Amino acid sequence: MSSIRIGVFDSGVGGLSVLRHMIAQLPMVQYVYLGDTARVPYGNKSAATIAHYAAQSAWFLRNNGVDMIVVACNTVSSAALDVVESVAGVPVVGMIEPAARAAIELSVTKRIGVIGTRATIESQAYELALYTHGGTGNLTVVQHACPLLVALAEEGWLAHPATYAIVEEYLQPLLQAQIDTLILGCTHFPLLADTIEHIAPVTLVDPGYWAARQVQRVLGLQARDGAMQPHAAHVEYYVTDIPSNFAAVARQFLGFDIGKVQRASLDAVVPSSLP
Amino acid sequence: MSSIRIGVFDSGVGGLSVLRHMIAQLPMVQYVYLGDTARVPYGNKSAATIAHYAAQSAWFLRNNGVDMIVVACNTVSSAALDVVESVAGVPVVGMIEPAARAAIELSVTKRIGVIGTRATIESQAYELALYTHGGTGNLTVVQHACPLLVALAEEGWLAHPATYAIVEEYLQPLLQAQIDTLILGCTHFPLLADTIEHIAPVTLVDPGYWAARQVQRVLGLQARDGAMQPHAAHVEYYVTDIPSNFAAVARQFLGFDIGKVQRASLDAVVPSSLP
Repeated sequence: MSSIRIGVFDSGVGGLSVLRHMIAQLPMVQYVYLGDTARVPYGNKSAATIAHYAAQSAWFLRNNGVDMIVVACNTVSSAALDVVESVAGVPVVGMIEPAARAAIELSVTKRIGVIGTRATIESQAYELALYTHGGTGNLTVVQHACPLLVALAEEGWLAHPATYAIVEEYLQPLLQAQIDTLILGCTHFPLLADTIEHIAPVTLVDPGYWAARQVQRVLGLQARDGAMQPHAAHVEYYVTDIPSNFAAVARQFLGFDIGKVQRASLDAVVPSSLP
Repeated sequence: MSSIRIGVFDSGVGGLSVLRHMIAQLPMVQYVYLGDTARVPYGNKSAATIAHYAAQSAWFLRNNGVDMIVVACNTVSSAALDVVESVAGVPVVGMIEPAARAAIELSVTKRIGVIGTRATIESQAYELALYTHGGTGNLTVVQHACPLLVALAEEGWLAHPATYAIVEEYLQPLLQAQIDTLILGCTHFPLLADTIEHIAPVTLVDPGYWAARQVQRVLGLQARDGAMQPHAAHVEYYVTDIPSNFAAVARQFLGFDIGKVQRASLDAVVPSSLP
């Protein structure tokens, strides 16, 4: 077990899909997972409110002594990565950059789709990252906000006929634009990957996987694919609220039962200037 | 215009469906509407967190000098009405009691269904109120949590095939129990009334309507049905966040364009003992 501690935070449970990739690739690291379940979801909120909440989460993890912070939430990564970086005091890895680079590499036709929450899509963060790394003239990027998919994933309606109907409607403009690669720009969407792939047989990019690889590069660690059972990983879990179905939803994201969950308060005032 | 000011609060925009009934029945009163849009939704949160947020909203309205507080949120009414009453300092009307009494009166077979958020259903507040007023031996109450309907209503997918499929699945156990009356125990559900009625041709009880009648009785006012155009009513709107689609969603709930919306902070500490 390494002494490196990585803080991973999200608006709620969705970031567990990112944690799963990190544990799979870097099982020897210690993790501190923070989910702001008392204020979830962030996806329909304003950029200013998202930034305020993200600063509080980063401050909590900084005070917890982590060596790196992973913003395991596409909405926060889109709207407030700079705020997290200014508060963190340690290296920060977000969801956008690694996924954008991977999508450009994986796409053959350079016609790339992005789906996410309303806040993520409106921020245009993915679009900007894709054009920055891929060149404006070489890429076609088509974005679509899919807020209902978050609720469906949390309900566990992953292959319900209604889910198919909703995914079909959301993806129609992207398929009409003939994308060959689709960024799943919300941590809930990988749960729906089978349904999405059935309707849109394109290359799916799960930002959590690519963010975990980025973490590995930043820390200079060797990945150990499948070297350890994920449930045996060392993770401290913190949430701001404990709804009755947290453990069940967490199981769906991680694929194993989580142990003890602690309650975190994010009320501490974040200093306005930080080293 | 009366000098009476009524505070109406909700976790977000849903309470506007209650405000609509209040304006229709009591157009001469002044209203202060508060939506905690920065922390919405409450429906999947714990009772303790809901109570904490509700106390902050009640405190905000009390400091705003209202003469009465209407808890225009079934989740708060279910989980924290006592907390609101202890903070309010003025009479409080919630959603549960008026709707439960109306359902008992309207039901012929005394087989009553209740749908709501997970928190509302788990609190069993409707069940308790129904049995208290209707007698345990005389009623059959069947409850079902329908969290996806909140997201569908906010997205405006009111008559989408996927919405029909989801409503159909949620209502199945209630229809099998042969209910003849259904309480729409979440402020978002009246938007879906046509779809719900199509699938379940039973008597629908909209708690907002009955709460407005209760307010009228408590204040000793005469209702003036349709005496005034609703958009001309005097309403101050406060929200804790202003997402980009707030005005559009509000229009869907109220049926008219709202004017100025002010940002409210609920950070003020609620005193632990109050007169």
